[in-house]
Amino acid sequence: MIERQVSVVMSIVGERVVRVDAAEKATGRAKFIDDMKFPGMLHASVLRSPYAHAKILSIDKSEAEAVPGVYAVCTHEDVPGKNRHHVVTDDQPFFAEDVARHYGEAIAAVAAETRELAEYAVTKIKVEYEELPAALGLENALLDEAPYVGGEENIFRRYKIRKGDVDKGFDESDIVIEHKFVTPYQEHAYLETNGALAVPGSVGDMTVYGTMQCPFYVLHAVSDVLGLPQNMVRIIQAATGGGFGGKEDVPSLVAAIAAVLACKAGRPVKYILSREEDLICMSKRHPAIVRIKMGAKKTGELTAIEADYKVNAGAYVTLSTIVLWRGTVHVAGPYRCPNVKVDAAAVATNMVPCGAYRGFGTPQVIFAHESMMDELAFRLGMDPLEIRKINALCVGDETSTGQVITEEMGMGLMETIERASEESGWAEKRKKYSNQEGETRKGIGMSTFLYGVGLGAGGNYMARAGAHIQVYDDASVLLAVGTAEMGQGMKTVLSQIAAEELGCPLENVSIIMTDTSHVPDSGPTVASRSTVVSGNALRDAAMKIKAGLYAAVSKKKGVPPEVMESRDGAIYNRENGKMLMTFGEAVNAATGTRKHLAAQGWYISPNTDFNEEDGHGNIYFTYTWVTQVAEVEVDMRTGQVTVEHLTCAHDIGRAINPTLMEGQIQGGSSQGMGYGTMEEILYDKKGRMLTTSLSTYMIPTIQDMPDVTPIIVEHPYKEGPYGAKGVGETPLMGIAPAVTNAIRSATGVPIREIPAKPERVLKSLEGEEIL
Amino acid sequence: MIERQVSVVMSIVGERVVRVDAAEKATGRAKFIDDMKFPGMLHASVLRSPYAHAKILSIDKSEAEAVPGVYAVCTHEDVPGKNRHHVVTDDQPFFAEDVARHYGEAIAAVAAETRELAEYAVTKIKVEYEELPAALGLENALLDEAPYVGGEENIFRRYKIRKGDVDKGFDESDIVIEHKFVTPYQEHAYLETNGALAVPGSVGDMTVYGTMQCPFYVLHAVSDVLGLPQNMVRIIQAATGGGFGGKEDVPSLVAAIAAVLACKAGRPVKYILSREEDLICMSKRHPAIVRIKMGAKKTGELTAIEADYKVNAGAYVTLSTIVLWRGTVHVAGPYRCPNVKVDAAAVATNMVPCGAYRGFGTPQVIFAHESMMDELAFRLGMDPLEIRKINALCVGDETSTGQVITEEMGMGLMETIERASEESGWAEKRKKYSNQEGETRKGIGMSTFLYGVGLGAGGNYMARAGAHIQVYDDASVLLAVGTAEMGQGMKTVLSQIAAEELGCPLENVSIIMTDTSHVPDSGPTVASRSTVVSGNALRDAAMKIKAGLYAAVSKKKGVPPEVMESRDGAIYNRENGKMLMTFGEAVNAATGTRKHLAAQGWYISPNTDFNEEDGHGNIYFTYTWVTQVAEVEVDMRTGQVTVEHLTCAHDIGRAINPTLMEGQIQGGSSQGMGYGTMEEILYDKKGRMLTTSLSTYMIPTIQDMPDVTPIIVEHPYKEGPYGAKGVGETPLMGIAPAVTNAIRSATGVPIREIPAKPERVLKSLEGEEIL
Repeated sequence: MIERQVSVVMSIVGERVVRVDAAEKATGRAKFIDDMKFPGMLHASVLRSPYAHAKILSIDKSEAEAVPGVYAVCTHEDVPGKNRHHVVTDDQPFFAEDVARHYGEAIAAVAAETRELAEYAVTKIKVEYEELPAALGLENALLDEAPYVGGEENIFRRYKIRKGDVDKGFDESDIVIEHKFVTPYQEHAYLETNGALAVPGSVGDMTVYGTMQCPFYVLHAVSDVLGLPQNMVRIIQAATGGGFGGKEDVPSLVAAIAAVLACKAGRPVKYILSREEDLICMSKRHPAIVRIKMGAKKTGELTAIEADYKVNAGAYVTLSTIVLWRGTVHVAGPYRCPNVKVDAAAVATNMVPCGAYRGFGTPQVIFAHESMMDELAFRLGMDPLEIRKINALCVGDETSTGQVITEEMGMGLMETIERASEESGWAEKRKKYSNQEGETRKGIGMSTFLYGVGLGAGGNYMARAGAHIQVYDDASVLLAVGTAEMGQGMKTVLSQIAAEELGCPLENVSIIMTDTSHVPDSGPTVASRSTVVSGNALRDAAMKIKAGLYAAVSKKKGVPPEVMESRDGAIYNRENGKMLMTFGEAVNAATGTRKHLAAQGWYISPNTDFNEEDGHGNIYFTYTWVTQVAEVEVDMRTGQVTVEHLTCAHDIGRAINPTLMEGQIQGGSSQGMGYGTMEEILYDKKGRMLTTSLSTYMIPTIQDMPDVTPIIVEHPYKEGPYGAKGVGETPLMGIAPAVTNAIRSATGVPIREIPAKPERVLKSLEGEEIL
Repeated sequence: MIERQVSVVMSIVGERVVRVDAAEKATGRAKFIDDMKFPGMLHASVLRSPYAHAKILSIDKSEAEAVPGVYAVCTHEDVPGKNRHHVVTDDQPFFAEDVARHYGEAIAAVAAETRELAEYAVTKIKVEYEELPAALGLENALLDEAPYVGGEENIFRRYKIRKGDVDKGFDESDIVIEHKFVTPYQEHAYLETNGALAVPGSVGDMTVYGTMQCPFYVLHAVSDVLGLPQNMVRIIQAATGGGFGGKEDVPSLVAAIAAVLACKAGRPVKYILSREEDLICMSKRHPAIVRIKMGAKKTGELTAIEADYKVNAGAYVTLSTIVLWRGTVHVAGPYRCPNVKVDAAAVATNMVPCGAYRGFGTPQVIFAHESMMDELAFRLGMDPLEIRKINALCVGDETSTGQVITEEMGMGLMETIERASEESGWAEKRKKYSNQEGETRKGIGMSTFLYGVGLGAGGNYMARAGAHIQVYDDASVLLAVGTAEMGQGMKTVLSQIAAEELGCPLENVSIIMTDTSHVPDSGPTVASRSTVVSGNALRDAAMKIKAGLYAAVSKKKGVPPEVMESRDGAIYNRENGKMLMTFGEAVNAATGTRKHLAAQGWYISPNTDFNEEDGHGNIYFTYTWVTQVAEVEVDMRTGQVTVEHLTCAHDIGRAINPTLMEGQIQGGSSQGMGYGTMEEILYDKKGRMLTTSLSTYMIPTIQDMPDVTPIIVEHPYKEGPYGAKGVGETPLMGIAPAVTNAIRSATGVPIREIPAKPERVLKSLEGEEIL
């Protein structure tokens, strides 16, 4: 177990230190896979299905193989191991076999001397298809006449929560409202598309470099697809230009194709997706339909919540069941409610397989529950702020899954509500905007939510992480962890934690890119978990190192190790506050006496649980609590919404680095704003994606960015490193409903489908009830 | 501490498993640095001193810098850190400064787009020299008029042993003999010359790939020369085509030059020495002069040994002091002798700096003491076998440094003598060859010696090693160690030890190339230490892993971990012998319960000590004991010696892999035979090396190889992994005197200078007393 840090004065944690990778990113020196080259390296191109659903009758590779400069052409028949991508189930092939189940599914791949040559050779692969009817769209896939895609009648998985008695709850309420909410696909639009570089080794082994969030997922996939034991596969993360969930499971697909080609060609193979290809076939946020019914007393107290949550999973299960599960357990929001009934389903369609995206099934339900809270407030004539305060969970309350919130988890929900509303000038603006006329009108809206940190009960078995610390004889320190830096600042935050724990100057510490041979499987870099799990694993390793240092200091200074503490670059006698040795001197003493200054650390998250029957359980070891306030201006003539200000208060336990925390809030705000107001993926009637570039799939630019006021609330989580919880995802998650609630505040009409693009806003202004 | 293995039946240790790297070596897939290429990579060439001793008046780089395609030209002025190679002292510059002190010393270096271009540009560097008188040869350097090279009057270091009273010893003896012995340079003649590839990283860091024995030496050197902390330098050993000591310290010189160029050019730089360059400036075995005086009783018992041992260190200290020290403490051989006096000195000359070579200062003294033992036997009319048996150290005896040989160290000297003589048919051949006539005559000779395993008291502070074990969820296992595979079979032997200790099948285990970021400084791969130190470090790591496995098995099977043992790929209940789980099942259970299956292991060798005043001390934690018998045929007309058979008995404690042990014996025999009969480096009068190719520097070929009968004697060393000591060096070490003693047996005349090349043998036959 991790020893509790009680009253130590911290010198590095909490500081606004500059990102450790700032210089390499700013100067362009960071090595992305496209910067890497190996002798004899080939380039890959992939043939993808032009149909949303089709039988594959035959594949003729011969003409492609005959193209000079082509070294390998592979289909599922060339897979030396298993042609199955194991995530939750293993329904998805790396290369389609008899049937292609979505537009853009991989059929075959070529490795050739140049990328252009590979792309040319791909056109020479002859595939005979028989087109099949396709299930396009969530609701269509559930029709009786829908073609079968997968799961049980096109349902991959269901989840439910049964708490209290919702019928009784509705009976006892003064008001009951019910609405349907629709949320769209969202594309991650990371700066760097997916890609991998597979390099065959000299003993039949394979090393894969890639842009990824979850090196150990890729390890398992490459090991499976090549039929190699895991110790013969090494995954090294390259500098990664953004992830946001879009590099959680799909890099395995990319790496597997590169690896199969490399294995067949006996040469390194680089496979980097074009933006078009990446948009077409890589994962997205699940489109969803959420129906919610809420009952409340006149006073605003919630009496019952009933919800039906469905997501469009696409053609394969991938992470959809876990995404669905996370949405299910968050659907009732951060509110006290005795009666909750949730039914959720992941629906199979002949569309792109959806996966992880910052928030993981939760922004959809937050949009629904936060729109409903405003609706309730509107119907009851209450201030939206007040109704949230009345219902906000407090220490001792139960979540919808019956988990009791404790002081130790860190509970700052009310503080986020109060500080966000104060900072944003909620009360006066609400009043000021209440009766506007004219062509442009301003509005202010809010959202409040909770978010479970870490994998939760669904991923209990993966809730562990390793770390490696090595101290050199010049007192410099090398860190390695199993989670991944993808731009979020993990390397900096973990360097701060390690330096703080070791009591060495931050300058002494460096951290290498994640390499599966350095630390054992540490689970995925998702779910806002890195700071907590890798941070704690580093602390575990640091404690082992300190044992060696303290023993050496003890021998020289005659002070027992038990009274020593490390801080500010030195080791102190805790009893009299006197410095015993600097960190450097202690390292010197320890190496001189041959102490072991390298260690593997390990952290196991507290157990969580979930009862499939009723959806009860202690789902997460802690939660992040958030309140977001949006201010908008709406052009009543065009429906154009301008987001003018966002005030975002997050209780994250402890900000290891406030600047990075604020950066997360700013970046997440932008993505949340795009989700709420402009981002949309369109398909044609045949199930072919139309929005295949960043000029048709619109994301916010710097011009669209409002001022963002980040507010850091710190109610420490006792098990977190220095109290920290997680912050990776929440900044995005409540922006959409805060914005649509602000639009309602400006215009008086609700928005129940996002994005709130001008035409949709206009229609709502015209009184067209869209849903 | 390492738990004692008492009565475990071993299933992998002791087996003749195939080398784990056999396939990659045999198929050419192993990646040597010359197989590596990085984007933008440049090639280096180095300007070297044409004088043995010269002032450097000026260096003009401008013309070289102006050559198109040249990216960097560096001299000592371009070194960002320290221009000093720190080994024992730091007298040696990476680039010569005001003075060049030996022929071939590095003056400047160029990095250019191609090797040819770099070689061309080097010729454009203008250096003005003022030639100085040079100290050429060990004896010349000690003359009063010799120019000053270094140290105190050209002595870098002295050592001594004073035990008992040699004057009294000689007084009490029945016979006293005294002779001078001369041994030559020896070139390692590794298949692959020295080389390094320095790759600048994205955060100002530097990674160096190289052919090397001691990655941590290179780490320190590159860190020093670039002025970077060690955590910003990463050394990764490439496949290494032989070392034999020739890649102990000098790879640091090579890597430092590559790193300085790479740093200046901002690009990867590959620097691989040509064979000529490698021969001229890389380290060699020290030429030596050993004068020994021995006194004995008529019965053959030694009464006194007095020795003066001088080595030609060359222009810089490098490892010479440690080489000298090792020779000093071995000069009295494996014999009981109450009175010993040794004086030793490392002499500075303007010649190539000598360094480590398999045996490390000891083959020189073995040649001397074993020639003397035969001389004594001849004078006393005894069988050389008998005189060795009479004097051979036994348990309870003291070495020349007063170290008492214990049973626990493993003591099989007498068994090696007996088995080598029996196996070789000593007695009958000795008789048969005693009175030959004719143009070709046969002879049989022997040598007996001891050899300290590990670094000994001289390197106590470095006598530790780390290891990393990581078990994947498919029960495959990855090993990383800090010592280096250079062809000797370390990877195989350590894989066997790890598999044995973990109780997993050998197939489950793989071992990666040594990488300084994986395990902490584990000292050098020298002194026959890897098996003991890395083996024990792996065992330490394996025990930590087993704790996790046993806990998981215990939970499932209800058996306490204390009664478990691992063997034969499974975990057993020691009390009833029943199998509890296979290794794979246990891994499954452990990963399922999130046990930590990665560990860093550590091993500290037992302390050793040495008193500088009298040379007393417990010098090594154990010794390897060896007897080698050579059979030769001498052509009396030409002086040509043909070695026909070698019988080599080694007490190595335990052969982890007998086949590899035999391979060491065969390879070492070849090198020992070359040393004894043909290898010679020649200089001209200006101190310029003449033997600059493998057609002028002759080494044995397969045609020269005699039959070798290896004999493995196993007196286990209690601290060794499964009883193992070390075997890396001894196979070479006594071959030369065994051969010259055999020549004497054939011809009746002693050889006191090696190599015993035809002209030297002829002169001895002609009665010319050479020394």
